[in-house]
Amino acid sequence: MDTKVVPNIVVGRLPLYLRTLQLMTQEGRRVTSSQELGERLGISAAQIRKDLSQFGEFGKQGTGYNIDYLTEQLRQILHINKVWDVAIVGIGDVGHALARYQGFSNRGFKIALLFDNDPQKVGTKAGDFTILSIADLVRIIQEAQVQIAMLSVPVDQAQNVSNLLVEAGVKSILNYAPINITVPQDVNVQYIDPVLHLQKMTYYLE
Amino acid sequence: MDTKVVPNIVVGRLPLYLRTLQLMTQEGRRVTSSQELGERLGISAAQIRKDLSQFGEFGKQGTGYNIDYLTEQLRQILHINKVWDVAIVGIGDVGHALARYQGFSNRGFKIALLFDNDPQKVGTKAGDFTILSIADLVRIIQEAQVQIAMLSVPVDQAQNVSNLLVEAGVKSILNYAPINITVPQDVNVQYIDPVLHLQKMTYYLE
Repeated sequence: MDTKVVPNIVVGRLPLYLRTLQLMTQEGRRVTSSQELGERLGISAAQIRKDLSQFGEFGKQGTGYNIDYLTEQLRQILHINKVWDVAIVGIGDVGHALARYQGFSNRGFKIALLFDNDPQKVGTKAGDFTILSIADLVRIIQEAQVQIAMLSVPVDQAQNVSNLLVEAGVKSILNYAPINITVPQDVNVQYIDPVLHLQKMTYYLE
Repeated sequence: MDTKVVPNIVVGRLPLYLRTLQLMTQEGRRVTSSQELGERLGISAAQIRKDLSQFGEFGKQGTGYNIDYLTEQLRQILHINKVWDVAIVGIGDVGHALARYQGFSNRGFKIALLFDNDPQKVGTKAGDFTILSIADLVRIIQEAQVQIAMLSVPVDQAQNVSNLLVEAGVKSILNYAPINITVPQDVNVQYIDPVLHLQKMTYYLE
């Protein structure tokens, strides 16, 4: 095994390649090329070849990539050749939408636990799940050994709840609250805030 | 006015700076520094100073940044010193959550139009809005001169609907459908796919 550290930005493109390969499979395709992947993604073919070469040899000059094989390799590299349980904390509109989101299946994740601190919500159902109390979050997540959480609580609760998630052993947090949170170095945080994306685009509008 | 082109990646950090400044204002703060901004965001102070220097002089060595002033300058640079109308197309769970999302206000955007193609949904309400038919999308968006849309339709409709948005004059699309779409060069697309973020993080999990 190669022990060199692959840059974050390269790792970040692999899920895009995988998503495109999975769509190609659904289209009945068997073989693709770095050129075609690049055209679909707006990334240069050279960049894609360079990214993939960090992990091994997945295609041959002139014959392209076998889609099934490259898909399976990327699933192994990204550790999604298994299904990860995910907790959702904060079951407002966004949490509800995530609990019912159909896009996780076949991509490595399944919703396993829902938490909220509203007594009106705790004990009720959202999608297929009963909403649990945040008061029990640390114990329940520890017991279930869930390592991934999506955080959709209000801004003023985001840091406190993420502290609980860290205490419970969660190592990956996808934060929908529009605030940066502080976590230990061994915990990974990613952010989704639609307004940041919209503001990036209005820069280019008059 | 400076006419040099600012790199996308720099533009992309400005909304993060603005979001942090707005939170500081809510905390009753008046002055900050590149050091403090950097600590909150996990970005180096030098990077922040360099990014901001592309747009002007916003602080003085030793005295830091006036938060109100820098906020207002960033809002002007990002063209959100006005409120932009936004259309949402596809009113499933994600579209519903977006229609009811409280996080747009005071950040430059307001939801103005909702569209779906399900006859069961057209004419009903979602949040404060009546859902309109995608059959009427081009005409209605043209008349309303809406330039920004969020796309939350199924994968197999994303390209077709984005073609309609482009025809209607939309210049900025925030695409929640997990597929890359093709648009003319003068149209900007941003993507939100939670699974891409989760897969980036499982790479680092065992």
